[in-house]
Amino acid sequence: MTDPIWLGFDFGGTKLTAVSLRVADVADAPSGWLGQRRTFSPPDGDAHFDIDNMIQMGSALATGYVVQGIGVSFGGPVDFDSGTVLLSHHVPGWEQMPLQQRLEDAFNAPVRIDNDANVAALGEWRFGAGRGCDHLLYVTVSTGVGGGWVLNKRPFRGHGGLAGEIGHTVVDPNGPPCLCGKRGCVERLASGPYMAQDLARRMGIPATAMSGKQVADLANGGHADAIAVLDRGAWALGVGLGNAANLINPERILLGGGVTKSGERWWNGVQQALAQTTLPEVTVDLLPAQFGDDAPLWGAIALMLVDETAV
Amino acid sequence: MTDPIWLGFDFGGTKLTAVSLRVADVADAPSGWLGQRRTFSPPDGDAHFDIDNMIQMGSALATGYVVQGIGVSFGGPVDFDSGTVLLSHHVPGWEQMPLQQRLEDAFNAPVRIDNDANVAALGEWRFGAGRGCDHLLYVTVSTGVGGGWVLNKRPFRGHGGLAGEIGHTVVDPNGPPCLCGKRGCVERLASGPYMAQDLARRMGIPATAMSGKQVADLANGGHADAIAVLDRGAWALGVGLGNAANLINPERILLGGGVTKSGERWWNGVQQALAQTTLPEVTVDLLPAQFGDDAPLWGAIALMLVDETAV
Repeated sequence: MTDPIWLGFDFGGTKLTAVSLRVADVADAPSGWLGQRRTFSPPDGDAHFDIDNMIQMGSALATGYVVQGIGVSFGGPVDFDSGTVLLSHHVPGWEQMPLQQRLEDAFNAPVRIDNDANVAALGEWRFGAGRGCDHLLYVTVSTGVGGGWVLNKRPFRGHGGLAGEIGHTVVDPNGPPCLCGKRGCVERLASGPYMAQDLARRMGIPATAMSGKQVADLANGGHADAIAVLDRGAWALGVGLGNAANLINPERILLGGGVTKSGERWWNGVQQALAQTTLPEVTVDLLPAQFGDDAPLWGAIALMLVDETAV
Repeated sequence: MTDPIWLGFDFGGTKLTAVSLRVADVADAPSGWLGQRRTFSPPDGDAHFDIDNMIQMGSALATGYVVQGIGVSFGGPVDFDSGTVLLSHHVPGWEQMPLQQRLEDAFNAPVRIDNDANVAALGEWRFGAGRGCDHLLYVTVSTGVGGGWVLNKRPFRGHGGLAGEIGHTVVDPNGPPCLCGKRGCVERLASGPYMAQDLARRMGIPATAMSGKQVADLANGGHADAIAVLDRGAWALGVGLGNAANLINPERILLGGGVTKSGERWWNGVQQALAQTTLPEVTVDLLPAQFGDDAPLWGAIALMLVDETAV
């Protein structure tokens, strides 16, 4: 067979996933992959090891097909225009890595690379819960809080490719200090690890003994301290989303990431703070993302479908 | 003479300005108007009175020329797509007024209408301190705090045409209550009348005895309470701008409006809070707007120069 296919990669830092999809299948709202491979990065790996892995996994998926293009979601800052990874917070050797060029050389096909939040936003917009939207904000609430925009039906990256940093918008200048140096950032209050840390401190136990999921489980079971921490996280996220809605007036906001599995109390808290923060005439739909962990893979495919010549 | 001209209108609520500019002069960075007229709305006026005024002033400017198009900056919410004014906060009778249609009928030329913040942003981008930018945020800090975006070299209005409401983003959830129902909005802390109200209260004098300009004058003269109020306003605006920069990563932020004449101390305060709020890798230039009160008029002309077919 020599059917043309797209390849998509999602590299988060600890694991690497590769998928393939027939080009002819893209238009029909595909429900699954033609092929899929997954591997985990060893703790002592580096960028070259990961790139070799990408090429090996992609080549296996491409056997018998023609690769028409490759999209990559990278868990770290990326310069989209030059196709360069700026760095990985997890794996050494990624600094200023020309990943686009490396993969284009290996596969002799066009490659596009962007950071995971932008790519996930695009995937949800093209294939998931964001379909039909002109203007979309996608936010992942997980170990961090990151966002990506689709504006005017196109990825919006901003001047330096850094748009979407909702996690480090300030919602409470008297709040606890964030690693970024400020106080009361959305990420400091709403991310899983920070909520776990805050609850552990309240309970007088080591931070390592608590997870974001446990905060939600305890809160939903009626634990007063856990409720306070979870509610504050939901409030902070909702205020941050409301500020974003007042600034940009998106049609839809989608939430993904592990913390969004915290249950109805958490969702209600986010929705309430969002509604209280947006001006009465500013309306926005808040919805769960459709794809969960697969959003960056769908977005990697969608990256190749954007007409980058049109602006 | 039958030279083609553009007409521009700026209707703020209390005064109406009309200008004309030769179409042939637009490309050469024009430094002034071909013709200009100004009138003040009487306290008992209404929308029909104002529209008659527009038609009369525009007709006078158009005598001897051919009107190629008309741009209108309106001081209140506008539905750009339908060319309808939603309401005026100052003058009765503007509710759901099809102003675009009324002016097109009167002048037999295409008309575009948008709210003053969006139009001023576009004017600064096309003719003023925003020239050459891909992504721009313009904020006017005056009796209120409003903003407008130019993204990808085009006006960005959002889903409901409401993008840019930086004045009602929250920067201090424990701050004083705002008329909008929230606490610690940028406008509540940084606008002229609210700063005046807060200083008057601290000094135990009637709010009517204090203006935003006096707050700045007193602060720059060393008055401790005035310094506290002015610094807080500058801080709030800077945090709001920093949040916007993290979210959208614009290349440039321009500030206009009366409060921006508060002097070096105020500008330094805004710049400092902006720098502290943006992530280290997010860079943005903060500059004064070039046109002051004329920005909406330049924007009204620029409105006609946008290719609305391209998105």
